[in-house]
Amino acid sequence: MKLMLIGFGVVGQGLVEILHDKKETLEAQHGFSPQVVGVATGSRGFLYNAKGLSLSTLLDVGRGSLADYPDEEGLERDFSDASDLIQGRGADVLVEISPTNIDTAMPATKHFQMAIATKKHIVTANKGPVAVGFSQLMQQAKDAGVHIRYEATLMAGTPAINIGTEALAGSGIKAVRGIVNGTTNYILTQMEAGLAYEDALKKAQELGYAETDPTADVEGLDAAAKVLIMMGAFFGKDASLKELDVTGITGISAADIAEAKEAGERYKLIAEATVTGGRVMPMRLPLSDPLAQVSSATNALTFSTELMGDVTVIGAGAGQKETGFALLSDLLALHRTITTR
Amino acid sequence: MKLMLIGFGVVGQGLVEILHDKKETLEAQHGFSPQVVGVATGSRGFLYNAKGLSLSTLLDVGRGSLADYPDEEGLERDFSDASDLIQGRGADVLVEISPTNIDTAMPATKHFQMAIATKKHIVTANKGPVAVGFSQLMQQAKDAGVHIRYEATLMAGTPAINIGTEALAGSGIKAVRGIVNGTTNYILTQMEAGLAYEDALKKAQELGYAETDPTADVEGLDAAAKVLIMMGAFFGKDASLKELDVTGITGISAADIAEAKEAGERYKLIAEATVTGGRVMPMRLPLSDPLAQVSSATNALTFSTELMGDVTVIGAGAGQKETGFALLSDLLALHRTITTR
Repeated sequence: MKLMLIGFGVVGQGLVEILHDKKETLEAQHGFSPQVVGVATGSRGFLYNAKGLSLSTLLDVGRGSLADYPDEEGLERDFSDASDLIQGRGADVLVEISPTNIDTAMPATKHFQMAIATKKHIVTANKGPVAVGFSQLMQQAKDAGVHIRYEATLMAGTPAINIGTEALAGSGIKAVRGIVNGTTNYILTQMEAGLAYEDALKKAQELGYAETDPTADVEGLDAAAKVLIMMGAFFGKDASLKELDVTGITGISAADIAEAKEAGERYKLIAEATVTGGRVMPMRLPLSDPLAQVSSATNALTFSTELMGDVTVIGAGAGQKETGFALLSDLLALHRTITTR
Repeated sequence: MKLMLIGFGVVGQGLVEILHDKKETLEAQHGFSPQVVGVATGSRGFLYNAKGLSLSTLLDVGRGSLADYPDEEGLERDFSDASDLIQGRGADVLVEISPTNIDTAMPATKHFQMAIATKKHIVTANKGPVAVGFSQLMQQAKDAGVHIRYEATLMAGTPAINIGTEALAGSGIKAVRGIVNGTTNYILTQMEAGLAYEDALKKAQELGYAETDPTADVEGLDAAAKVLIMMGAFFGKDASLKELDVTGITGISAADIAEAKEAGERYKLIAEATVTGGRVMPMRLPLSDPLAQVSSATNALTFSTELMGDVTVIGAGAGQKETGFALLSDLLALHRTITTR
């Protein structure tokens, strides 16, 4: 399986590190020995070698310029942009991990369309194309016989997309709700332990959970993007951020938290998708709800189904190796599909 | 997809009911329109019709004799035993749901081998062949290009086998431990609420969670069979019940439970499988452990992995429609594999 990486930041390096470190295991246990044949970045250059690039050299280059990757037989660097590489060179799978734009989904959607046109399967961690206009992309892919897999867009490599679209297919999913933003869950957990909002946020920033501008997390926008992804994945519905009711955690006071605690309940920022719509809002959950027990930066999702009742999955929601693994998980799923042909 | 059902008890009727009730949805959403062409029972007769049996008539017959299924064009009833049907008639998938024998795995293993020899894929809820000598069966199936799927053998339709063997493939699973017996978890939950062991057991029997002879559950033998299944599924290891350390819950007193509670802990009967072996034992878990929060008859499993840390799944572990759904989930997975060929 020949892979073309569009984007080579933290996640891409995470994937390459896993492919490098787990090479023997992946081959022995799964008969899986992929090659990275192409890499495209926004400003650090391009690489293509039909015979496969060296994973260890790619890891040495890391966040540096791809010009630092030494010349080798068959190596090409001269591409005008990612589209030029996607359209002009061969690969079995496009790994779309360029930076997410949640408003326009560009240029990732363009990359998806070019991959579909050139019959490359797609594995992605990019929330943009999955949150915006996804049903049309899925239809185009289906018509072309191209698979799109996107486990990495929700709860990193914790099985979430795959549970809803495959393992629980046919169970009659009525609603999916969960904790899909680790930053806000960390802050709420710290506030319940007694910290003021500002101090909890500061601690989250120190630990790298929250960004310098925490707006997207604390106002619920990151969670809302994931609601769009859930609506598309589990209910086949396209929606836009504007259509969702979105409330973050900035309005929750220490007094609110204390009051909930006294009532045997706990505040969680809940992202919810149903067949009729989606929303993000802080909710007071009874401690008997599995979601109430999910603390710190951990994520969790409860599928409410007709045949199985509630099924809850709890795990990491972010991280370099966790997101890298999500991509690997999708690549292995494609590998199983292709080898059973 | 033509299905042959070996066994037509609670689980088989649950599957047929789902296929009947969800016919339109399965066809519209998944392009899946299976036919039941054959049914074999131990003492209630046989049916085969290459053109498909009537699901509603099968449901009317229910637990009665298959002689009550009225004559129709193409119907055959005259088979000497299940093997005769499996070997003599065609189907795409053998659904093996005859009664489990956890010691010898017979006659289910024989049915598996005949299905493999006649190139029928296998979907099963039968713990016997999966717990006893599974690696050899899997190798035979692989050599013959036959798929074996067995989600129903662990936690009913709650994704467990599929998470470990597919979604988390490549994550480096180090250990899998969980609550895989609802009866004992119900009893422990009731004891923590103040009931004596005998009263909790009686209540479990009244609710149908525990059998009249509760030995297999309370002595940990049912959980141990599931440890064998986990060892085979997740670590490719064959083992026998004799090799496992197995302790049930009969030695746990009200005083033990109270002492744990005072220390902020909770007793759970934990089934554990690792690359080196397996065991079943009551453990005192801190309340911060997701497994500690799983109450009543609910089941849960935590996968401890190299790349993803801990991933926990919580859901139903038994039930007619829940186990019927597990079979459907595997049939849909086969359907996806076959249609992407």
